[in-house]
Amino acid sequence: MPDQTDWYTQPLAAISTTHVERAEARQSKLTKPPGSLGDLEQLAVRFAGWQSSEKPVLNRIVLRVFAGDHGVTARGVSAFPAEVTQQMVANFIGGGAAISVLARSLGADFRVVNLGMFAPPLDAMGLENLQLAPGTADFTEADAMNEVVLEQCLAAGRDVVDQVDADLFIAGDMGIGNTTSAAALLAAISECSLDDIVGRGTGVDDEGLKRKKQAIQLGLERLGPYTGDWKGLLRGVGGLEIAAMCGAYLRCAQRGIPMLLDGFISGSAALMAQQVQAGVVEWMIAAHSSAEPGHKYMLHKLGLEPLLNLKLRLGEASGAALAVPLLRDSLALHNRMSTFEEAAVSGSV
Amino acid sequence: MPDQTDWYTQPLAAISTTHVERAEARQSKLTKPPGSLGDLEQLAVRFAGWQSSEKPVLNRIVLRVFAGDHGVTARGVSAFPAEVTQQMVANFIGGGAAISVLARSLGADFRVVNLGMFAPPLDAMGLENLQLAPGTADFTEADAMNEVVLEQCLAAGRDVVDQVDADLFIAGDMGIGNTTSAAALLAAISECSLDDIVGRGTGVDDEGLKRKKQAIQLGLERLGPYTGDWKGLLRGVGGLEIAAMCGAYLRCAQRGIPMLLDGFISGSAALMAQQVQAGVVEWMIAAHSSAEPGHKYMLHKLGLEPLLNLKLRLGEASGAALAVPLLRDSLALHNRMSTFEEAAVSGSV
Repeated sequence: MPDQTDWYTQPLAAISTTHVERAEARQSKLTKPPGSLGDLEQLAVRFAGWQSSEKPVLNRIVLRVFAGDHGVTARGVSAFPAEVTQQMVANFIGGGAAISVLARSLGADFRVVNLGMFAPPLDAMGLENLQLAPGTADFTEADAMNEVVLEQCLAAGRDVVDQVDADLFIAGDMGIGNTTSAAALLAAISECSLDDIVGRGTGVDDEGLKRKKQAIQLGLERLGPYTGDWKGLLRGVGGLEIAAMCGAYLRCAQRGIPMLLDGFISGSAALMAQQVQAGVVEWMIAAHSSAEPGHKYMLHKLGLEPLLNLKLRLGEASGAALAVPLLRDSLALHNRMSTFEEAAVSGSV
Repeated sequence: MPDQTDWYTQPLAAISTTHVERAEARQSKLTKPPGSLGDLEQLAVRFAGWQSSEKPVLNRIVLRVFAGDHGVTARGVSAFPAEVTQQMVANFIGGGAAISVLARSLGADFRVVNLGMFAPPLDAMGLENLQLAPGTADFTEADAMNEVVLEQCLAAGRDVVDQVDADLFIAGDMGIGNTTSAAALLAAISECSLDDIVGRGTGVDDEGLKRKKQAIQLGLERLGPYTGDWKGLLRGVGGLEIAAMCGAYLRCAQRGIPMLLDGFISGSAALMAQQVQAGVVEWMIAAHSSAEPGHKYMLHKLGLEPLLNLKLRLGEASGAALAVPLLRDSLALHNRMSTFEEAAVSGSV
């Protein structure tokens, strides 16, 4: 058997510059002033390059919510108790959560992947119940997870992607306490101050926000400065679900599946994937700019412009799901509008 | 017969504060951190007040594109020749324009209303061919239209709305040269300088932009300062299609039909309707912020926050059509998500 431990450094899929150019040429012939469809024009062009097709399609949308518990919740960093992770997973499957409603509207292939909770959920339809660890450890005191569990989480994300055929992959998150991990990852690899990037998550109060910053400070001091050891960082202060999302993102770029990013947690996983292979970002679209204050710094580091800015801060892939109609519309316009010649419309003077 | 000339000052429909409060209460019980769905929460609440329903719906979407020609095009203010108005109307009906593609995706009831062109289009399915005037006059030299035609255009917009039942009304525009009229209307009623608010429309070059500002300057000097005579202003520098959109907006608010605004032309009609009855804005949603530089000043005067910012500058109601899925999703989330109690999810600590 080949060594699978460094699967994540395998080469990424290529983007077809020929089809990018053909799609740009087509955009310039459609019955509208050049550039007047704004960001939607570039979206269609990117899909053309990704799918090596002049008329790309968006039929098979795969949406996976990755769930895990966070030991750092013992530090009082969240407005909600940790048991809500498990309760919300049941709500996802029961159909009553925001992402359940949105996934139905989209007709997306939607499942939940449990990486590890304090009290694992019962098996259910729509749930991939891996339970690789009983949540993470409190990262102020020890590494959030060990090396074996990190590799298992990365591989779990990879395997989720290997099991599907998709025109678009969306990863969402559920994990009380996970904005604490995501902010810690961002702080470690950026020049940002904790005051700028640590937000209220689900709505923690002033005292909780102070505890959250202290916990991140302690975790990062324990690890020492970041020198490019992405595995050490992710193991140290990451989350099981964040590691799995990172693995999924890398595999999407290897397989040539475009990804639509959600918000702050999704962004932290994308940042880690970018640390592994910078080119992974070429396969990503940022769905929205979150109300979580650190998110704009993440998007800046990723070099991505968000499509929506609706002050969302829910996670679950809800922001990504809300942006899908814009992607569909960009392709419908690209594929179905008439050209000036077809419609016998005069060009500019 | 009653005097119909001042139909536009008839009272506007009332918004149900009871249902606004009930919808706000429901939002606070849904399985998400309070406020985490951002702008979508307030959208659902507004629809509840508009429809006097705790669970509002968005089924019947009526989309009308109002078209007319502009005499000021003789001044070289546009990148496209005036004949494109008529050609694009044919393209709308033929199904190849951006709004044709988007209206099909939405399943909207879509028709085009011709108020008046230099060369009127042939009758066709989906076209209401009123032809109330042969376009407007060049407003640098004379009023764009006379009093009778203004009343006819306002009434035409009213009648379009009276002929439909709708959960949402969308007005779009087609008229080469109409960003010149829209900027003139905005300049007249605001403190904005022409340099700030006159943009390139479909993409006019530097010389054309200079001619466009000069034309607006001449038109406004001819009229003298605005002192609240909205009819005089609309007649003086407006457009046939803008007047009809203004009439349609007033009637929507009178009948209690929410409106989704498009971009710069739609915004100028909304500004004029606001001059007639300030409360009309309570029934409006701004779909997007246009790339046309004056649009943000319009939205500020209307007191509306846009949902999207995609650098669109096409008109035709295309920006409004692109925002409809967000409205639908806001209602789906509001109506279909479980409450904390229903899903047995713990609240915040």
